[in-house]
Amino acid sequence: MFEPKAIAIDIDGTITDRRRALNLRAVEALRKLKIPVILATGNAPCFAKAVAKVIGVSDIVICENGGVVRFEYDGEDIILGDKEKCMKALEVLGKHFSVELLDFEYRKSEVCLRRNFDINRAREILRGFDVKLIDSGFAYHISDSKVSKGKALEFIADRLGIFPKEFAVLGDSENDIEMFRVAGFRIAVANADIRLKELADLITPSNDGDGVVEALEFLGLI
Amino acid sequence: MFEPKAIAIDIDGTITDRRRALNLRAVEALRKLKIPVILATGNAPCFAKAVAKVIGVSDIVICENGGVVRFEYDGEDIILGDKEKCMKALEVLGKHFSVELLDFEYRKSEVCLRRNFDINRAREILRGFDVKLIDSGFAYHISDSKVSKGKALEFIADRLGIFPKEFAVLGDSENDIEMFRVAGFRIAVANADIRLKELADLITPSNDGDGVVEALEFLGLI
Repeated sequence: MFEPKAIAIDIDGTITDRRRALNLRAVEALRKLKIPVILATGNAPCFAKAVAKVIGVSDIVICENGGVVRFEYDGEDIILGDKEKCMKALEVLGKHFSVELLDFEYRKSEVCLRRNFDINRAREILRGFDVKLIDSGFAYHISDSKVSKGKALEFIADRLGIFPKEFAVLGDSENDIEMFRVAGFRIAVANADIRLKELADLITPSNDGDGVVEALEFLGLI
Repeated sequence: MFEPKAIAIDIDGTITDRRRALNLRAVEALRKLKIPVILATGNAPCFAKAVAKVIGVSDIVICENGGVVRFEYDGEDIILGDKEKCMKALEVLGKHFSVELLDFEYRKSEVCLRRNFDINRAREILRGFDVKLIDSGFAYHISDSKVSKGKALEFIADRLGIFPKEFAVLGDSENDIEMFRVAGFRIAVANADIRLKELADLITPSNDGDGVVEALEFLGLI
């Protein structure tokens, strides 16, 4: 059986339902773990730090799809992505679509947009811009090509003195793919994107939070 | 029996424990209510909106001890307090104490400080500055004198077309006092500040979240 030294887990669609409300059974289960639980989200640092605090897990968070990492609640944002690059891409997208910015002031490494345009056409338009367009299932993100939840996980693992392969990771959407590529054990919840399920070591029978509980039971952690 | 048309409830120390982790029984109970549940916190808007979202209650929040209110998750901050006034007071305090700013960039109407100085002496120093110093139990806040959770509650009630007296309110600390003064039914959890208990219609037998569940049962809401 895989014995993880730490867990990295996506928030929206993995510990929460479609309305983004926490699954309380999953929260209860995560609190029981004796190893660090690191939230890894596409959301902004101030969202991630708040949610980690009220869930009651480690203060270490991966935010903005890996563009920012944090180690302490009152600590600094460590910015790994270049927001300027994303702003240039936004300017171009704005000529083709009527884009709607979300949480603009709170994002430090990327630009977040409402899901109201054709993302495939947008990807064509942004070819050559050194950015990627991510669909988290809750918003579209223009993100620096060089960042990902996977790279952020490597950054954190290094700081904690453990190997990325010693992590178990849980997720539901395409922004979790790179995190799946570097971790030692990969869990996709039942509602996960098919591309994530293809990389998974375990696909849970149940959706989101109930699936998280099943996975932690499978690993013998609860 | 008092039949509230809405609930306003403090977060830290009321729905959370001392480590600021949510009481899951309280969350479950709040989700069952058929009336709007409005979180009222000393914390910053981005914290409040995140916590309201993951708890799964109304997106309406009172933040920064009443200095900011919000009605929608992706909506605007409505700023009721004057941060400039608080900054002038901060400058003076900085000459007497080695103050440590918390969450500075995220606060829009006030200044939040670590609890590492003598608040009574600080209150003496700031006499005549048209600001108040609030102890939320988790931080000290320099707040515009004209704002309070009570005034913010009146603002929200007006917008919702109900009277403040139709609210039941729940809290634990001195920054809940003004909210208690305007509401129709006041509940102090067992761990509440003595000044709050003196104003309460109901003091719960249990601390924080367990007390919240007791209060909602008492009101026949769950």
